Amino acid sequence: MAKDFSTRAENYAQWYNDLVIKADLAENSAVRGCMVIKPYGYAIWERIQAVLDKKIKDTGHVNAYFPIFIPKSFFSREASHVEGFAKECAVVTHYRLKNSPDGKGIIVDEDAKLEEELIVRPTSETIIWDAYKNWIKSYRDLPLLINQWANVVRWEMRTRLFLRTTEFLWQEGHTAHATREEAVKEAETMLNVYADFAENWMSIPVIKGTKSPAERFAGAIDTYAIEALMQDGKALQAGTSHFLGQNFAKAFDVKFLSKENQLDFVWATSWGVSTRLMGALIMSHSDDNGLVLPPKLAPIQVVIVPIFKNAEQLSLISDVILPVKKALEAKGISVKYDDRDTQKPGWKFAEYEFKGIPVRLTVGPRDIEQGTVEVARRDTLEKEVLQIKDIENKISNLLDQIQKNLYDRAFAFRENNTTRVDSWKEFKEVLDTKGGFISAHWDGTSETEEKIKAETKATIRVIPFNNVLENGSCVFSGKPSTQRVLFARAY
Amino acid sequence: MAKDFSTRAENYAQWYNDLVIKADLAENSAVRGCMVIKPYGYAIWERIQAVLDKKIKDTGHVNAYFPIFIPKSFFSREASHVEGFAKECAVVTHYRLKNSPDGKGIIVDEDAKLEEELIVRPTSETIIWDAYKNWIKSYRDLPLLINQWANVVRWEMRTRLFLRTTEFLWQEGHTAHATREEAVKEAETMLNVYADFAENWMSIPVIKGTKSPAERFAGAIDTYAIEALMQDGKALQAGTSHFLGQNFAKAFDVKFLSKENQLDFVWATSWGVSTRLMGALIMSHSDDNGLVLPPKLAPIQVVIVPIFKNAEQLSLISDVILPVKKALEAKGISVKYDDRDTQKPGWKFAEYEFKGIPVRLTVGPRDIEQGTVEVARRDTLEKEVLQIKDIENKISNLLDQIQKNLYDRAFAFRENNTTRVDSWKEFKEVLDTKGGFISAHWDGTSETEEKIKAETKATIRVIPFNNVLENGSCVFSGKPSTQRVLFARAY
Repeated sequence: MAKDFSTRAENYAQWYNDLVIKADLAENSAVRGCMVIKPYGYAIWERIQAVLDKKIKDTGHVNAYFPIFIPKSFFSREASHVEGFAKECAVVTHYRLKNSPDGKGIIVDEDAKLEEELIVRPTSETIIWDAYKNWIKSYRDLPLLINQWANVVRWEMRTRLFLRTTEFLWQEGHTAHATREEAVKEAETMLNVYADFAENWMSIPVIKGTKSPAERFAGAIDTYAIEALMQDGKALQAGTSHFLGQNFAKAFDVKFLSKENQLDFVWATSWGVSTRLMGALIMSHSDDNGLVLPPKLAPIQVVIVPIFKNAEQLSLISDVILPVKKALEAKGISVKYDDRDTQKPGWKFAEYEFKGIPVRLTVGPRDIEQGTVEVARRDTLEKEVLQIKDIENKISNLLDQIQKNLYDRAFAFRENNTTRVDSWKEFKEVLDTKGGFISAHWDGTSETEEKIKAETKATIRVIPFNNVLENGSCVFSGKPSTQRVLFARAY
Repeated sequence: MAKDFSTRAENYAQWYNDLVIKADLAENSAVRGCMVIKPYGYAIWERIQAVLDKKIKDTGHVNAYFPIFIPKSFFSREASHVEGFAKECAVVTHYRLKNSPDGKGIIVDEDAKLEEELIVRPTSETIIWDAYKNWIKSYRDLPLLINQWANVVRWEMRTRLFLRTTEFLWQEGHTAHATREEAVKEAETMLNVYADFAENWMSIPVIKGTKSPAERFAGAIDTYAIEALMQDGKALQAGTSHFLGQNFAKAFDVKFLSKENQLDFVWATSWGVSTRLMGALIMSHSDDNGLVLPPKLAPIQVVIVPIFKNAEQLSLISDVILPVKKALEAKGISVKYDDRDTQKPGWKFAEYEFKGIPVRLTVGPRDIEQGTVEVARRDTLEKEVLQIKDIENKISNLLDQIQKNLYDRAFAFRENNTTRVDSWKEFKEVLDTKGGFISAHWDGTSETEEKIKAETKATIRVIPFNNVLENGSCVFSGKPSTQRVLFARAY
């Protein structure tokens, strides 16, 4: 299984790509930059979707669906949005094909040219606000709290499975509010939903904060983000939530009559997470033996491998182990019993280790005699022998332990890879040797941020929420600064 | 609510459109032919999705995701598929926009022209079989049982909300098998899944059968379908399942090594249902008072409307009724308690009636004194007064009754609107006066079928499974026939 699989130390990027392919998570398709999400990868995404969808609904939102196409002119309506989004995108210009006159295949029918080109949505603010214009008349229609699960397309030049693909899957929330305060609070609420999901379900510790103006969403007043640190010391933005002010309301003329009978533009937010989370999940926990999954998102949490030489032995094992499987399933644990005789136990061990199944139980004829079972944890690769009669009670607990251990490990890694830096020399040194987050003073200007990026490829990941204010001098310009911000190279 | 709402008798098409808009199910967007599925409509679709997804998984399938774009040349690979699908579709020709030199908006960047145009998927056989080529090597890889939930685009000239839209949502299953028999069985299994869903969840009786060659899916050997009859006497194809033979395996060169070490092309099926089901749902049950929903698919099954003049009265009612709500919810019933004081009871009655909530409970101060509640059924519009203490036990039963009543009503309608016809004169008369399904002899030729369609717009909906064989003469040509088939005008 794991032969010709790169180690992380050898080549992290290659390790990542090998892992995604060999663990059957995703692969490249015939269309440049577009991936196929394979069943095992999609099953993890379905778990992510199900949990997030519930959290989004529990915070008062409902789902809807808006068109995949956006008229080209819509992008020009919001001045900064057009700069950010209407460039590298898929443009539909025609609506018909016809048989080629030479009889060889089909060609575009030039008579079927669209009057106005359509853009495959890179994000849906414009088409959604065009609809909201008719939905919002009075304060009674507010807040409008809508989410959409959809595919989006951004024509990326360099793509990497899950991390940056031309087409990706995501959810995008788009809300409208009567007041600025309520909209800001909504943007914060949703960032907290994302942070809670990342930490308690994905076992990924994240830092919540505000983006610098240069890193803001095109059209936003403020962008909040959760940032995670990957094993190679690069940061990954795992979710964003935007306070859009009245920008889109003004661009699409969406006004409401307040309780006081005043006509005013509504206040907006948007927020999203995407299949990029799959990349974060992989790069936070996996190792040189393959994928490592937090139990709460693992499609299969426990795999049982019987060791048998003949049908009689298998039957003895099954008699004992199938009731255990049933008992575990009754507790909501997903269990796979792999009793195939077409593959050897060693092949199965390698397979399930590579695919990151959190717990493996192995049972042979001698175990049955002794009433024991071997329990192997994927996160630590530790094994222990337990009494079969105890399994039912111990597995839930073990899954919780693994979930927590993955978080603790990732948290310790981040702590060890966050460095306070006070000089430009040190900044560059740390970045090139150790990587990770660098906590440094910044003078607050986009000019300095740009220069730092140009020289080092490091960007300001976030200005953490509730940041400690302290006087200092900018690590680059030496100008006065009131706080440290987090720099890193990033995915 | 229902003012300026057409009745079915006045104008069925207008009634349908009004209902979809006024019940907040969907609306047209700024993009021609593309709809916005509004939250209430989407909530129904989510119920449909959840139930179908479980049924699809329970029959052994897993979900995956394939690219939205298909290289143009892929369509030419399967000869009949290209004729059926590569014509009216959205064609992506460019991947970049740029600022217009005149400073007015953005234009397509002619330097960013794709070498090969991409088609927004109208269906995914080709891109999926291109992937399967690498996934299938041996009989051990079979059967491959995959489903995808996705959006697809077909450039329709005349569109109608849910029934025929340029973009629509659907699921498409694509399976590969080692033998012809297994693939045929799979296609039948999935048609049965659709029929079970239509009848037991949507309360829509359907006829299962085979399509005539003229109505077959482009690229299929056989197309099975479920056909339902709408209230206006037109048929609606509610789901299809295709036996594709080895056509796509040959087009994309997908071979497997059998147990006997023979290399052979695999056998395939594909099957799908779409947001069109929403149209079937609406047109099967709804009436001149608005939407009628089968309880199993209703996002809100029970609405409770308190009648109160002041906060004190409301508080008295809430004290009694909130425990009832909780008890119902504990049974898995979705309940909305609308205690808003911003809308009058009459408005609420009209609103929930129009939106098809299966059961409405009304409780006023006198009811509380007497321990009673008024229960109104949406399907029959009947009301009865029940003891509050009995509500908890009676509502489940009532919801089941409504579910069954809707089916029985639709079944009786179909029975009354299926006519055996033995002459061409009668055929045309029945079609123009009564509509519905016409059971008539057909000589089995596409030529006759085409002529019937040209003259009457009626098509063969299905040749029912297990059709009774009987000698007769074709209703149109007079030639010998061995069986009756079902004709109808259709959506």
